[in-house]
Amino acid sequence: MQTTFSIHTAGPGLYEITREVAQWTAPQGDGLLTLFICHTSSSLLITENADPEVQSDLTAYFDRLVPPSDDPRMSYLTHTYEGPDDIPAHIKAALMPVSLSIPVLDGKPRLGTWQGIYVVEHRTRAHRREIAAHFAG
Amino acid sequence: MQTTFSIHTAGPGLYEITREVAQWTAPQGDGLLTLFICHTSSSLLITENADPEVQSDLTAYFDRLVPPSDDPRMSYLTHTYEGPDDIPAHIKAALMPVSLSIPVLDGKPRLGTWQGIYVVEHRTRAHRREIAAHFAG
Amino acid sequence: MQTTFSIHTAGPGLYEITREVAQWTAPQGDGLLTLFICHTSSSLLITENADPEVQSDLTAYFDRLVPPSDDPRMSYLTHTYEGPDDIPAHIKAALMPVSLSIPVLDGKPRLGTWQGIYVVEHRTRAHRREIAAHFAG
Repeated sequence: MQTTFSIHTAGPGLYEITREVAQWTAPQGDGLLTLFICHTSSSLLITENADPEVQSDLTAYFDRLVPPSDDPRMSYLTHTYEGPDDIPAHIKAALMPVSLSIPVLDGKPRLGTWQGIYVVEHRTRAHRREIAAHFAG
Repeated sequence: MQTTFSIHTAGPGLYEITREVAQWTAPQGDGLLTLFICHTSSSLLITENADPEVQSDLTAYFDRLVPPSDDPRMSYLTHTYEGPDDIPAHIKAALMPVSLSIPVLDGKPRLGTWQGIYVVEHRTRAHRREIAAHFAG
Repeated sequence: MQTTFSIHTAGPGLYEITREVAQWTAPQGDGLLTLFICHTSSSLLITENADPEVQSDLTAYFDRLVPPSDDPRMSYLTHTYEGPDDIPAHIKAALMPVSLSIPVLDGKPRLGTWQGIYVVEHRTRAHRREIAAHFAG
């Protein structure tokens, strides 16, 4: 069984999709859920969903790990004509997951207590992001 | 078919689970093994299992890539009330896999000669870590 | 259904395997494709396949993020007897995917417009790399 989740993003940060995903698997029994994001400048991520500071700290950390391409430290980069946030977005997308596989029991993804499923937007301007989803019972 | 592997960790580092996982898949035939760690401050990782220096070097590298939150270079971080090792653990968990998918032939995960399956503990104090496992033949 | 893809690499960089993979899934209907690289010093990666500068920028970035072990900044590393590119290769392999899971519709992996599937070689000398592939309909 397959579907597509569509998310509108409005700038860099984490967008939670746990509820939409769990609603889709709820009628199923046991099986395996796979999510795959169909883009090269955004990512999927499972991280803590309790304190929103974790999410802003993650974004702040990755912005420092991968500075914009107009930062003097990044002058060796060549793919810069799509804006200073473009190649950093591709690099961040290489550092975070493009696909996630989660066992499902009785329709419930086996997430830990504090785990949420997120789309991570790496680009500055708004985007519509598609996540291909697969469930096999 | 599903199960849960439970691992007791005693501080940062790699804990091998290759044998437990292979024992579980051994009676099965061909199929796909999926492992998913139910936590946001530890990771799964496949790395070299021959020389233990690889494991300690990996830990040393990631400790420098993501310093504790009481390090002056990390003063921009805000999620610090759970200890200086807490938000770095979430960041490391964003950099290493939360799920692994491994084809299985005749009950044997198709690992390369030097590949071992590990839980990576990112927190300082001892933890019990659960890994959800799924096999479909 | 399973197979193995074999790739000859000639030094660090990205080697595209999208076409070989899509040819293998083409006769299948709907299902899930899983790729798993059987090595600890190379990775799988999905990234942009339009502008080759993205690929060389990715390699350039990771070479700076993880310098060779004979670089003075890396003097804390101990696993150095297999050459200065060895432990950095293991570290890069911890930062990029070892497995990828991609939903397939009507024989076609659900890749986005700009997504290509790559093997990333982290070692300096030539290697033969094996990728275990699994498809379940």
